[in-house]
Amino acid sequence: MPELRRDPVSNRWVIIATERAKRPMDFSTRSEEPKSNFCPFDYGNEYTTPPEILSFRPKDTQPNTPGWWIRVVPNKFPALENNLKLERYGHGMYDAVTGFGHHEIVIETPDHNATVATLEVEQVEEIIWAYKARYNAIASDENIRYVLIFKNHKKDAGASLAHAHSQIIGTPIVPKRVQEELEGSRMRYKLKERCIFCDIIYQERMESTRIVEETEDFIAINPYASRFPFETWVLPKVHNHDFGQIKEKEVQGFAQILRNSLARIYKALDDPPYNFMLHTAPATGDGKNFYHWHLEIVPRLTKVAGFEWGSGFYINPTPPEDAAKFLRGVEL
Amino acid sequence: MPELRRDPVSNRWVIIATERAKRPMDFSTRSEEPKSNFCPFDYGNEYTTPPEILSFRPKDTQPNTPGWWIRVVPNKFPALENNLKLERYGHGMYDAVTGFGHHEIVIETPDHNATVATLEVEQVEEIIWAYKARYNAIASDENIRYVLIFKNHKKDAGASLAHAHSQIIGTPIVPKRVQEELEGSRMRYKLKERCIFCDIIYQERMESTRIVEETEDFIAINPYASRFPFETWVLPKVHNHDFGQIKEKEVQGFAQILRNSLARIYKALDDPPYNFMLHTAPATGDGKNFYHWHLEIVPRLTKVAGFEWGSGFYINPTPPEDAAKFLRGVEL
Repeated sequence: MPELRRDPVSNRWVIIATERAKRPMDFSTRSEEPKSNFCPFDYGNEYTTPPEILSFRPKDTQPNTPGWWIRVVPNKFPALENNLKLERYGHGMYDAVTGFGHHEIVIETPDHNATVATLEVEQVEEIIWAYKARYNAIASDENIRYVLIFKNHKKDAGASLAHAHSQIIGTPIVPKRVQEELEGSRMRYKLKERCIFCDIIYQERMESTRIVEETEDFIAINPYASRFPFETWVLPKVHNHDFGQIKEKEVQGFAQILRNSLARIYKALDDPPYNFMLHTAPATGDGKNFYHWHLEIVPRLTKVAGFEWGSGFYINPTPPEDAAKFLRGVEL
Repeated sequence: MPELRRDPVSNRWVIIATERAKRPMDFSTRSEEPKSNFCPFDYGNEYTTPPEILSFRPKDTQPNTPGWWIRVVPNKFPALENNLKLERYGHGMYDAVTGFGHHEIVIETPDHNATVATLEVEQVEEIIWAYKARYNAIASDENIRYVLIFKNHKKDAGASLAHAHSQIIGTPIVPKRVQEELEGSRMRYKLKERCIFCDIIYQERMESTRIVEETEDFIAINPYASRFPFETWVLPKVHNHDFGQIKEKEVQGFAQILRNSLARIYKALDDPPYNFMLHTAPATGDGKNFYHWHLEIVPRLTKVAGFEWGSGFYINPTPPEDAAKFLRGVEL
């Protein structure tokens, strides 16, 4: 059973997967096992995943059979498990929590070779609707404090399957990175009674050099302190702390600018590995006035090395002003 | 000129390398350029690095010629530059600092094919003496707040040259990760008047399951909340916040346990890529009673993906108790 453990000095949490513990020989970097061509996310292989939690499919089709255009299933190898009792306990001076949580997979298209950057925008809207539905369902679990939606694209970004999919993990703890953003925005609100993300949008619109695209409801920027080359954030222009409240018109606008941002990165950088992470307020309801949901896309072009691990500093060889200019110039 | 920029929400800093700005085509992942066999760290190529800052060499040899056994040179492509004026300035709502700092390379051996894990321990002692000398020299710069010593081993851990070397970066800011450790240990000290790292050593000795090796003056453990499989920390058993104060007997003990820890990882995991980072108190003198210097070794066996970037959580598939047992069992 997985276990959550807290580092007592820095307060970061780790998930220790005690069940499928890896031994040294499992990490061999020298030999790559030949991959089979079997894909559990293809039509006809629905029986190889755990039974679907949600699917968008024609009314005359059965669950766990072909025909769907979006399918959400539990992760077959979950980092956290929702059939455990949530318990918080001490281990001497250390703190631990049972590995309770939710871990789901959103299969974004039945097309094995498609990628979100080149999907029709209507299909991306369907992905966002699935996110919203599962976000709200998991967030309503009273033992869940945070729900993170994220995507790993390609092996170098941590994807173990090539078929387009994203993941949703619900945790019984508010993660450190979110906590930091919450604290930073809470302090700013105390000082100024304004949302710091709204201030960022204001300044970016004033300067315009780091804007990749602006639409009626959304803005895509390369942030001033980008950690990575071509890092792109997508923010709703109207303040809202909670992604779970996204409305129909916003779903359309969000799908459009997300697809465009990914398409720009795809074209400018030749389909690089990337991650994206959707940051929203905790499921506990904190952050209403001062937090502002957004999505962060990080192309994985540089290696994170000792300096970054040791300091938390990042070295970014591409100024965001240059990156935004390139991305703006991409023909969609 | 490089620029330090602060993310206003999370307070993390980035170094934007404006000088050698990379364009999209510089990141091509498809074609690997053929590497030349020329190594600037080999005997006879001393003229290709900037002039040496420090070297351990026979008295009858000239600087920047062969004969040395340790050589420290400025990084030819520094992340930060020490010929700039340190200035802190605002950019609208954002904060920036000129890219002032020190960036040096410690060439750990003249042997192009050697690796620290298999060096004679006497040579590792020489490396530690070089660290100490350069640490204290850079820390004495009144504009420097932190000096980070770290190592990237192999390309997947961020090394751009194969010849064994480590790096030293001095920054005008205390890095976020160190700040977090400082705050955590300061709070503990307020509460208990004890060093949290001394408490960790006490508990680890009591349990013994996560100890890799213990010597007269040092202990190597796989920490309770290890982020990565086989993550290993080396700590001095006697409380000291400042690596710069390390004494002769401790240099010997530290060299021995560091070499042994790297040798265990080398043998158990078939010479994997790894990073190590030396964490010590800031150059400003903060942390005397409550901080405790230590070195963190992280083998790079798993991919950091969207969940880690988005949450600051880590998923570790090898419990530290299992990892420590394997590492203890390695024949040295």
